[in-house]
Amino acid sequence: MLDNSDNSIKCLDNGFVRLVDSMGGDDAIVQAARVSYGKGTSKVSQDRGLIRYLMRHRHTTPFEMVEFKFHCKMPIFVARQWVRHRTANINEYSLRYSEARDDFYIPKKEHIQFQSALNKQGRMGEVSDELKKKVQSYFEEISDRSFEIYSELNQAGVARELARAVLPVNLYTEWYWKNDLHNLLHFVGLRSDSHAQYEIRVFSDAMAESIKAVAPFAWEAYQDYAVKGLRFSRIEQGILEQNLPNRVIDDIVGDVDYQITATLHSNKPRKEEDLFPLYQQQGGKDTVEDFNLKWESGEIKTGNVRELREFKGKLTSLK
Amino acid sequence: MLDNSDNSIKCLDNGFVRLVDSMGGDDAIVQAARVSYGKGTSKVSQDRGLIRYLMRHRHTTPFEMVEFKFHCKMPIFVARQWVRHRTANINEYSLRYSEARDDFYIPKKEHIQFQSALNKQGRMGEVSDELKKKVQSYFEEISDRSFEIYSELNQAGVARELARAVLPVNLYTEWYWKNDLHNLLHFVGLRSDSHAQYEIRVFSDAMAESIKAVAPFAWEAYQDYAVKGLRFSRIEQGILEQNLPNRVIDDIVGDVDYQITATLHSNKPRKEEDLFPLYQQQGGKDTVEDFNLKWESGEIKTGNVRELREFKGKLTSLK
Amino acid sequence: MLDNSDNSIKCLDNGFVRLVDSMGGDDAIVQAARVSYGKGTSKVSQDRGLIRYLMRHRHTTPFEMVEFKFHCKMPIFVARQWVRHRTANINEYSLRYSEARDDFYIPKKEHIQFQSALNKQGRMGEVSDELKKKVQSYFEEISDRSFEIYSELNQAGVARELARAVLPVNLYTEWYWKNDLHNLLHFVGLRSDSHAQYEIRVFSDAMAESIKAVAPFAWEAYQDYAVKGLRFSRIEQGILEQNLPNRVIDDIVGDVDYQITATLHSNKPRKEEDLFPLYQQQGGKDTVEDFNLKWESGEIKTGNVRELREFKGKLTSLK
Amino acid sequence: MLDNSDNSIKCLDNGFVRLVDSMGGDDAIVQAARVSYGKGTSKVSQDRGLIRYLMRHRHTTPFEMVEFKFHCKMPIFVARQWVRHRTANINEYSLRYSEARDDFYIPKKEHIQFQSALNKQGRMGEVSDELKKKVQSYFEEISDRSFEIYSELNQAGVARELARAVLPVNLYTEWYWKNDLHNLLHFVGLRSDSHAQYEIRVFSDAMAESIKAVAPFAWEAYQDYAVKGLRFSRIEQGILEQNLPNRVIDDIVGDVDYQITATLHSNKPRKEEDLFPLYQQQGGKDTVEDFNLKWESGEIKTGNVRELREFKGKLTSLK
Repeated sequence: MLDNSDNSIKCLDNGFVRLVDSMGGDDAIVQAARVSYGKGTSKVSQDRGLIRYLMRHRHTTPFEMVEFKFHCKMPIFVARQWVRHRTANINEYSLRYSEARDDFYIPKKEHIQFQSALNKQGRMGEVSDELKKKVQSYFEEISDRSFEIYSELNQAGVARELARAVLPVNLYTEWYWKNDLHNLLHFVGLRSDSHAQYEIRVFSDAMAESIKAVAPFAWEAYQDYAVKGLRFSRIEQGILEQNLPNRVIDDIVGDVDYQITATLHSNKPRKEEDLFPLYQQQGGKDTVEDFNLKWESGEIKTGNVRELREFKGKLTSLK
Repeated sequence: MLDNSDNSIKCLDNGFVRLVDSMGGDDAIVQAARVSYGKGTSKVSQDRGLIRYLMRHRHTTPFEMVEFKFHCKMPIFVARQWVRHRTANINEYSLRYSEARDDFYIPKKEHIQFQSALNKQGRMGEVSDELKKKVQSYFEEISDRSFEIYSELNQAGVARELARAVLPVNLYTEWYWKNDLHNLLHFVGLRSDSHAQYEIRVFSDAMAESIKAVAPFAWEAYQDYAVKGLRFSRIEQGILEQNLPNRVIDDIVGDVDYQITATLHSNKPRKEEDLFPLYQQQGGKDTVEDFNLKWESGEIKTGNVRELREFKGKLTSLK
Repeated sequence: MLDNSDNSIKCLDNGFVRLVDSMGGDDAIVQAARVSYGKGTSKVSQDRGLIRYLMRHRHTTPFEMVEFKFHCKMPIFVARQWVRHRTANINEYSLRYSEARDDFYIPKKEHIQFQSALNKQGRMGEVSDELKKKVQSYFEEISDRSFEIYSELNQAGVARELARAVLPVNLYTEWYWKNDLHNLLHFVGLRSDSHAQYEIRVFSDAMAESIKAVAPFAWEAYQDYAVKGLRFSRIEQGILEQNLPNRVIDDIVGDVDYQITATLHSNKPRKEEDLFPLYQQQGGKDTVEDFNLKWESGEIKTGNVRELREFKGKLTSLK
Repeated sequence: MLDNSDNSIKCLDNGFVRLVDSMGGDDAIVQAARVSYGKGTSKVSQDRGLIRYLMRHRHTTPFEMVEFKFHCKMPIFVARQWVRHRTANINEYSLRYSEARDDFYIPKKEHIQFQSALNKQGRMGEVSDELKKKVQSYFEEISDRSFEIYSELNQAGVARELARAVLPVNLYTEWYWKNDLHNLLHFVGLRSDSHAQYEIRVFSDAMAESIKAVAPFAWEAYQDYAVKGLRFSRIEQGILEQNLPNRVIDDIVGDVDYQITATLHSNKPRKEEDLFPLYQQQGGKDTVEDFNLKWESGEIKTGNVRELREFKGKLTSLK
């Protein structure tokens, strides 16, 4: 019934995610940030840097300036998890107004697994083909029988709002769902995580494709600074502080000094005689002989100077 | 499993609403309003008047200062409507973590009705006893069979998060639900309305009992100024303006002048000779003879002076 | 600094509102409603009717599917009122990051008025020219002197975040402000009201122009069903019930029966002999002779059948 | 005017934070979590563990079940930062309704510093006493003069809502501010951070005292898992993976195996002959001789088994 045009991404057996509309992208984040933080000129390379800076420092409001609207179709039990993200605007197909359609989710064999023993909310392990078939046939039995009953009651004139109560939560529903980028990233961060239920993860992954297309720098920054990486708690930090030998930390910090120097040189090439002093200004402690040796080796990676300095700070805090 | 103490109100066959905790009441509304609007002294009679004034003029923020927390148990299809009120905080029983219980909603005969012809989302009319029995037996059939399947899959070790997808939306779930009074009143205004589905209305009505107990003035004011009463649209107002004879309006306005006078006199009794001048100050147009005649009749109602004056303004706008 | 292109609307002496971007319009409301309420075909005339139906019945979620983003510049005391609308996304110019600019609001003479005696939060009455000049010169004095001090402290290197604390609330600030149509209408409903402060009303009125351009049907419906019109409280309704003569109500109801008949006939013309039966079906109580007399008079207005029927219901409730 | 009882905490020269009311505490978090996650029995020691588990795994909804209401008085420029936390309910003193009071923030000498060169939004460095005195006298000058003007305009009958626009943002305002624990922790996390402006930090720190008193386990867990600790980005993780020698990681992991064993033994003491097998089950790789040697040394710290295992996982991911 509803337009299901080319850009829709199939999810599960009969569901989909379709980007209906969006407002703004990486440029809108930069535009908003420039009002707040009075940041100056605007080259694309600087836009990326600014977006990464905002993400790294949790300046989230500029990311709220981008808006996405999706048309989605998913089983009710998926919709029930999804709807808990309260910042979104939602218009859902109503079974009080409209008749239910014969459209149920039947899991594919490869997604039928055992209850995880480790994780109370997960699944794991290989199930016998026989059990898989049984699961599928049970899903089909309940779907068919409940829809048969629903249809009969509907035909007999029973109120739709009541008759629908026999339908199982694998019934497909659909909605328009609109959210801003900040909250959408948070959604994807939680629901594309390996701990999320498979059936919502496919929808989250599908929406992630739209984010990548509409705001690629924001997506990359979110991965680098929020999703990926490692977090050590205060307790873990304490163990690291006690157990990481200072000389190991010094070694890494020493390498970072080279990386900072190489990055500065790469951004704005210096004369050869200025390189060692530059290295020393960064806190480099090697002798000029060692410096020349390593520098010649030509294997020094470059990065972002501000990030590398922040990293040195974190490492040093572990000594 | 969960404490289900005395103050819980039974809803439907196996559901309930229980007020777990609340913060503040009418006094907290008044306290907050006095900061915002710098209102002076604090007698209970004035508290009521202030709360009514706030409600009448849509000063909603003081009502947000009161908080309610409920423990509720309801069928999933009810929870699905309920959760759309996004300002609430919710903790729901999770079928990923915990096993489903054999607990389904079966409608009572008196609540099984036909689809409304007038209202696409309602029900109406008397259904034959035969059909009612059939509806009940179908609800039982799907509930029993789906739970049988669920239990078997569960026993076989299939992941709970998947097995639960065969369960119908008449399965009971439960949650803690916390909201502020302003948004709770809005919820009750919508869900205790005659257009709301019967199965959510009973829960809304149950929560209304808690509001009445915790913030009785706020409840009364909400009924008087938001729920009850009549709203005429711009178009309807136009028809009234053209069709209500001015003398009818004048008659009602004339009566209101008496009511204002009587109220002022009741609040602060005047000498007899000051009554007619007082009446004239309110805009009363009767002669002193007519005034004395009506005043003696002793049937003049009193009200709230400010409200009665606002009412005069509305009536006059219809001339 | 920021692009301030043609479509910006000047507000107060140095402020403005500029629509930066928007997502969706009347069409998006209809699209979302058709998912929820399963409404069928889509002609523009029907779109308007659907939008009016949604507004009349407070189905607000489809209006949340439209998004507006404004760039605005206004005095701090206006921003302080504005920011209380919490659903919006905001990025404001920061005086911690950036230097303040010498840009203050000085009220025009015609907006300098006395404190209202009736309304604790309003202004009224004509002020002498002398006092107006004094007010303006005082605004200028404080603006100039505080900025002088700010600049001197800034030059001396004092932290910006501290130095800015001497600046008065008539200093201009600016922000990006993004909100959905439902909440934007609510904002404009409150802030374009005659009780709102003049200095925020001009900004609200300016944003209203964008709503009219982007979603004209929604704007019209909001005016007809939410802003304009009359609301009678339960108490006022009681007075009307007691005082409105039933025959007056009957007269108006009688007229509405003609309007309904005329509207049905206008939507789908009937044969002449079918008109009186049609009138009777609507509840019309006139004899065929009276009917013919009035019908011939040719002065019967048409309207919306559903609205007229709802109006009859309200009138009858007053008997 | 407003009650300012014992429990209020003085902030800045004339401001304060006072806990007016609260709903729930650590127990309410546990109660809500037990519905969601079906966790079993309830000893206080287990409550702490459950709260820490929820915090570590970002299960935030149970923390929303606790509510705080504060009465606060702070300068307008602080209120302007504060109000950006949009989940709170606020009732603020209105200068449209009420007269301004002669109450301004004058910074103490020790808080007058230079603009930070490193941090565009911070302050740093020692300012001369002369400049400090000048800053204070400027604050006093503007406060006095603006209030003089305001009072004169007020006396002359100029509308309050207009006259107040000459007042500077160091004027004190006050409000009731209500928020749930999850969002309050987020507020304190941001505003008690060293990057926050000193003048809002004192208010944040004062509210933190209330959190510690009302929900001490939640506060502790928030510090351990959200505020304190270290986060390495994807890029930094890459550098660590390349530069941390595997044997260093192995050493730390080896120590953690001892800690896990000691913790299990401390929770439920084992017979001496069962200790080495227990150690091996945890992945311990030392020989029985080495094990006995280290075990006897008696310096093994205990911790939380689940946390220590998660830590091993993170360390191993760096190899």
